[in-house]
Amino acid sequence: MSSDTELQDEKARERLIDLAAEFYDQFAGGQIPEMELPTRTKSNIEYDEDSHVWVYGDRTSTRSANSVRGARKLLKAIYTIDFLAQQLDEGRSSTLRELYYLSESWDSKEAGFNDQDESNQLVEDLEIVSEVTREDFHMRPEESGATLMGPLRIREQTRRGEREIHCQEDVGEGGYQIPNNPDTIEFLDHDIEFVLCVETGGMRDRLVENGFDEDHGAMVVHLKGQPARATRRITKRLHDELDLPVVVFTDGDPWSYRIYGSVAYGSIKSAHLSEYLATPEAKFVGIQPQDIVDYDLPTDPLSDSDINALESELEDPRFQTEYWTEQINLQLDIGKKAEQQALASRGLDFVTDTYLPERLGEMGIL
Amino acid sequence: MSSDTELQDEKARERLIDLAAEFYDQFAGGQIPEMELPTRTKSNIEYDEDSHVWVYGDRTSTRSANSVRGARKLLKAIYTIDFLAQQLDEGRSSTLRELYYLSESWDSKEAGFNDQDESNQLVEDLEIVSEVTREDFHMRPEESGATLMGPLRIREQTRRGEREIHCQEDVGEGGYQIPNNPDTIEFLDHDIEFVLCVETGGMRDRLVENGFDEDHGAMVVHLKGQPARATRRITKRLHDELDLPVVVFTDGDPWSYRIYGSVAYGSIKSAHLSEYLATPEAKFVGIQPQDIVDYDLPTDPLSDSDINALESELEDPRFQTEYWTEQINLQLDIGKKAEQQALASRGLDFVTDTYLPERLGEMGIL
Repeated sequence: MSSDTELQDEKARERLIDLAAEFYDQFAGGQIPEMELPTRTKSNIEYDEDSHVWVYGDRTSTRSANSVRGARKLLKAIYTIDFLAQQLDEGRSSTLRELYYLSESWDSKEAGFNDQDESNQLVEDLEIVSEVTREDFHMRPEESGATLMGPLRIREQTRRGEREIHCQEDVGEGGYQIPNNPDTIEFLDHDIEFVLCVETGGMRDRLVENGFDEDHGAMVVHLKGQPARATRRITKRLHDELDLPVVVFTDGDPWSYRIYGSVAYGSIKSAHLSEYLATPEAKFVGIQPQDIVDYDLPTDPLSDSDINALESELEDPRFQTEYWTEQINLQLDIGKKAEQQALASRGLDFVTDTYLPERLGEMGIL
Repeated sequence: MSSDTELQDEKARERLIDLAAEFYDQFAGGQIPEMELPTRTKSNIEYDEDSHVWVYGDRTSTRSANSVRGARKLLKAIYTIDFLAQQLDEGRSSTLRELYYLSESWDSKEAGFNDQDESNQLVEDLEIVSEVTREDFHMRPEESGATLMGPLRIREQTRRGEREIHCQEDVGEGGYQIPNNPDTIEFLDHDIEFVLCVETGGMRDRLVENGFDEDHGAMVVHLKGQPARATRRITKRLHDELDLPVVVFTDGDPWSYRIYGSVAYGSIKSAHLSEYLATPEAKFVGIQPQDIVDYDLPTDPLSDSDINALESELEDPRFQTEYWTEQINLQLDIGKKAEQQALASRGLDFVTDTYLPERLGEMGIL
């Protein structure tokens, strides 16, 4: 393991020990131990107009050991901190679900979790108070699974040593599998012109087959629907560290606009991670409602739940721009939605020869 | 592209042209063109006791152009054959969804598909009558996405040339991404002792982190829930071509037994592909109901739908063995189910140090 990774692990471990030390000091000073957290209700989450991401407001709530319920919560926190600190010390990792089951083996039965929601919630709380991400605690998600294909050479720190991989030349057609913690990746060199995040596997495969990544220096990131944290994190790193424009290409329906939203603005649930995961500069390519009209795409009618979702997006501060208001109103007006693969109705090369060059040209990317 | 792949493409193309030629001959002979297919209803699908997979029975049905509806079906078949033959000729590929949309661009409006079910069904029909798999028509699935990690060096024919990849040494922690058509892979050399198919990402990561693949020569195949065709195909190839035992490791509930069933025996829906996809020699490791008792695992109670699923498995010919009858009855008896990650209640190493060695020892694999 490189000294960088060791340093990061050590830092995460220190933050956890600091939390435990705080409880210790409170005990030693004759105080009832407590932990202060931002209130995680919808009313205490704000869309920050400057940074264009969700952040917590000023309200906080206190977890105190002055009740049996509160004391039990802090006990669980202490056991979890102990487990995480030990895991970091040993250079190991685990999943959220393993943590939940593992708590059954702890010597205090009171410290065991009642269900996985409880352990998930506690890990989120620890992320917030320690300002260390779950990935830096070495907590893995259950499934990650997105892939990269594009002109980038990376070095990944694996448990089995360093691996240097070129994300076009050293991988099969399936591409490079993003690891659970993409901060183990170092970017070595690249010829990327822009990052193209793609919702569906079918479209990702079309772009790769047509050589779009080679022809235009595109780094094709497969989102696989609502993107995992690892996918959003690497997208942000590609933008921030390599100074690359990021565009998002999805189906043309309200659920896909939310996928774009989660890449660009983050989500209410992970407001504490916006700085780590969100790429507010990411732009939406399409399918735009305007494309449905301009390219006369095959469509499906909007369902009632589509209409409700579009209407709630009109109220969503993330979509309160002239662009989105216009597009969403247009879609409600025409009453139709289209998938990205509907572009195939013009032939298999239409998306790479015509649609993307035109749209990316309009956006100043190509 | 290697001459092997070219040969395979040429063979698939010939089978398609043969189908079209048959129609032509029927026309030329003054006959109404028709196509004969095995009847694809549940009553015409049998579990073959010798090969241990699902196969079609003797009943057939005829698609004839003697009605407008029948004629339209054959017209669609002809256009699809034409498209597939051209695709093979150009060395290209497409998704089932692209085919559906693409049919909008065909010069005959009558040949366009009404919905994707219709085009999917037709491609399945063509698989059956031509005895060529969808993969050999270069039809990609929407999502594939499983990965390999283990001591195997492969050569993949990609559109961008050959790639030699060792599935431990040349990949990151995410492993080697199986391509949509795993028949583009050639196995070069290996130190695999057995193939271990794993249902969940969390358990796959645990095995890789604990070095189980390195310590025991295990090829870890991530199933990602119900496995994609590509995942089942590569599992079968590892078994058949490298003569390796295959074991399946899932959660301990009726839905996971079906995952095992689809690896081992195939499904009713793809009975025509059993020979290509199913590995009847695959054995089930667990979580067995017996393990819930023996290892005193954390459990959840069986829901009504779990109980119904178990009862229908008792009736399923694939599960009519002494082993499964005993295990399923035991599970109904104890009324409990357990996830594979529940093994973490005994510590993070329990699965690799104790559970798998014990179970694989009992099964004669280790």
